[in-house]
Amino acid sequence: MTIDTLSRADLQEFHDHQRQAYDALKQAGLSLDITRGKPSAEQLDLSTELLTLPGADDYRAGGVDVRNYGGNTGLPELRSIFAELLSVPVEQLVAGDNASLSLMHDTILWSLVHGNPDSPRPWAAEEKVTFICPSPGYDRHFAICEHYGIDMVAVDMLDDGPDMAAVRELVKDPSVKGIWLVPTYSNPTGAVISEAVAAELAALETAAPDFRIFWDNAYAVHHLTDEQVKTADILGLCASSGHPDRPLIYASTSKITLAGAGVSFFGSSPANIAWYLGHAAVRAIGPDKVNQWRHARFLRDAEGVLAHMERHREILGPKFAAVDEILSARLGDHGVATWTQPRGGYFVSLDVPDGTAARVVQLAKEAGIALTPAGAAFPYGQDPRDRHIRIAPSFPPLEELRAAMEGLCTCVLLAAAEKALA
Amino acid sequence: MTIDTLSRADLQEFHDHQRQAYDALKQAGLSLDITRGKPSAEQLDLSTELLTLPGADDYRAGGVDVRNYGGNTGLPELRSIFAELLSVPVEQLVAGDNASLSLMHDTILWSLVHGNPDSPRPWAAEEKVTFICPSPGYDRHFAICEHYGIDMVAVDMLDDGPDMAAVRELVKDPSVKGIWLVPTYSNPTGAVISEAVAAELAALETAAPDFRIFWDNAYAVHHLTDEQVKTADILGLCASSGHPDRPLIYASTSKITLAGAGVSFFGSSPANIAWYLGHAAVRAIGPDKVNQWRHARFLRDAEGVLAHMERHREILGPKFAAVDEILSARLGDHGVATWTQPRGGYFVSLDVPDGTAARVVQLAKEAGIALTPAGAAFPYGQDPRDRHIRIAPSFPPLEELRAAMEGLCTCVLLAAAEKALA
Repeated sequence: MTIDTLSRADLQEFHDHQRQAYDALKQAGLSLDITRGKPSAEQLDLSTELLTLPGADDYRAGGVDVRNYGGNTGLPELRSIFAELLSVPVEQLVAGDNASLSLMHDTILWSLVHGNPDSPRPWAAEEKVTFICPSPGYDRHFAICEHYGIDMVAVDMLDDGPDMAAVRELVKDPSVKGIWLVPTYSNPTGAVISEAVAAELAALETAAPDFRIFWDNAYAVHHLTDEQVKTADILGLCASSGHPDRPLIYASTSKITLAGAGVSFFGSSPANIAWYLGHAAVRAIGPDKVNQWRHARFLRDAEGVLAHMERHREILGPKFAAVDEILSARLGDHGVATWTQPRGGYFVSLDVPDGTAARVVQLAKEAGIALTPAGAAFPYGQDPRDRHIRIAPSFPPLEELRAAMEGLCTCVLLAAAEKALA
Repeated sequence: MTIDTLSRADLQEFHDHQRQAYDALKQAGLSLDITRGKPSAEQLDLSTELLTLPGADDYRAGGVDVRNYGGNTGLPELRSIFAELLSVPVEQLVAGDNASLSLMHDTILWSLVHGNPDSPRPWAAEEKVTFICPSPGYDRHFAICEHYGIDMVAVDMLDDGPDMAAVRELVKDPSVKGIWLVPTYSNPTGAVISEAVAAELAALETAAPDFRIFWDNAYAVHHLTDEQVKTADILGLCASSGHPDRPLIYASTSKITLAGAGVSFFGSSPANIAWYLGHAAVRAIGPDKVNQWRHARFLRDAEGVLAHMERHREILGPKFAAVDEILSARLGDHGVATWTQPRGGYFVSLDVPDGTAARVVQLAKEAGIALTPAGAAFPYGQDPRDRHIRIAPSFPPLEELRAAMEGLCTCVLLAAAEKALA
């Protein structure tokens, strides 16, 4: 029975019931955390070999001593593995240090200070710079924009990508220089950008000559189903549409191997790669090639990566199933929430009744369940409908995740009842 | 016999003799490289254990799983080792990824874009920004300034630090925001900044309220003699002079462990560390903590680092001795060159007759001996006297180094004779 069909008296009774359940939850004194998309210890154990690789006598990659300085493009041996997985020619793919977020940060900062190869002037010399932010999206993307004074305009993230009607209008504004996208298994909705949407993004006529697609392919191989969705070839689509320099592709091994000690990748057109390397050479003499070599030895080839990801799926699959099972069992009948059933990635998006997300997060916090702050998945942390909650099932052990989800459902129901009564 | 005492006929004979020697050198078809301060393979072998550390079951540092995300300050276990060596309180020392150059780059860029805690406005909003560049100095420092449009003014690097009379005048200009310094075993002269000079730098009244000392302590423990020079405590000196936020201290393990896979450090005042971390948090979720843990396990403690550096000295000492021996034997009698005898660090500075350094480098190149471009150790690559050559003895095996130095001396003598005849 959905709660909007309840009489006032039944609603009150429903509320009181949820309140009791919530009070019991608080009594339980939980301390659970489903805030961030961190791999679990069990997942990290899959990469234990990295803790002893490459081995005492194994430091020559081709003619290169990986222990010494140099090589800003990164090791070809590792780049070739990810070139195949990311559909980027190896000569257009750079391997960096830990953290693709840093590559995004640096490319944006260099765009601001120096401009891109096709920029009339540095972005910072423009009256303003605006980014299109499909939302809900990744809070750390938006944090970079906010930190550097880049205006953000939210557009809805739909099942096949951003609301293109809105995007089409926005790019008529010459201040619009970029769009953030997680193309495959989007953070946090799990949406996959369709070939059609990717093709339209590639072909768009934009007022800014140096418009960029920030294509953060963080979950390219992070499948949760047998479907193994293939990411649209944004590099090829942009090139064939006459906009070869438009896409900036990012990826990393953070959620493949060790989250805190992975390798990042940056792919783009030859002109953009030359631009990147020109700036990167001023910043460092080279990335950590030993870690790249360690990864090349461990992962071996593209098939090795995919086989490794199957083992992640074995761990993650039951967790995502538990989230869906508990949400269905507890919320399914009440008409108070919708949520995603992602085919991959790290998150489930939960939409609760408008105006109650912050209340749910607060209730959960007081019951010892840490959730990402309400609104975090929107520019400036502002969810205009205050309804979105991001669930990160990966880190806690399954039983803790189940407890957190049960508690969360109690909070959702209580907040919904409070709102209906108000 | 110094060449300025030779008759014209004797000079011509001297020249012809050097020309013959040079032609023979070219015939030898050498391919030698003494351009960069890279550790040799033998030195890298000292850290072979890092290629198998930390070990399959060794990933917990205190309560932290070093494999996962987080921890932007870096691991306390490693920071405490270098806090002791660098005389920086551990809570004021951050450990980062490979490459302290990146930390210098990022702090300068954030100063430009955001300003420092004590800046009236971002540096980029000033009419101009000027750095004092003691010269000869480190070319990669100057490259950062040039890349970001920071004006550079050279002052002489003397035996005890920069020419303070010149520095004292320059800091009256409010556009002067910084000075580059390698305090111990300076790159490339090997000079050590004295306590007195450090104290004066700390106490200087500067027109810019946010003047910064970029204190790149790259060679803090890289001794070549038993003297083991102790770096001046710039942090303490600045704090006691009422300028606690003035020093920015950088260091790394690049020339302690693996040049391409080390750990970098940044130390400063509490206010500057908070400022740094605020920006760094937007750039990454944390540094490579596994590599930091690996280093903590390998180096163990400050004594472990110093013992390890003794082994580097055993390899480097004979190379520096060979450089000095060959320069003395070949050039000592001719009054054509002076050079440094560093007590540590990675370089020897060679001064040849004014106006001949570029010619020497060209002659050496044509004979298959790669040297750092003449002028590289000066802002904008311009050595006003065209006399300075940086020698990096570390990388080649001893016999190759000897061959390169013999060849270099031939080039110096020929260029000097050419000039004297011109």
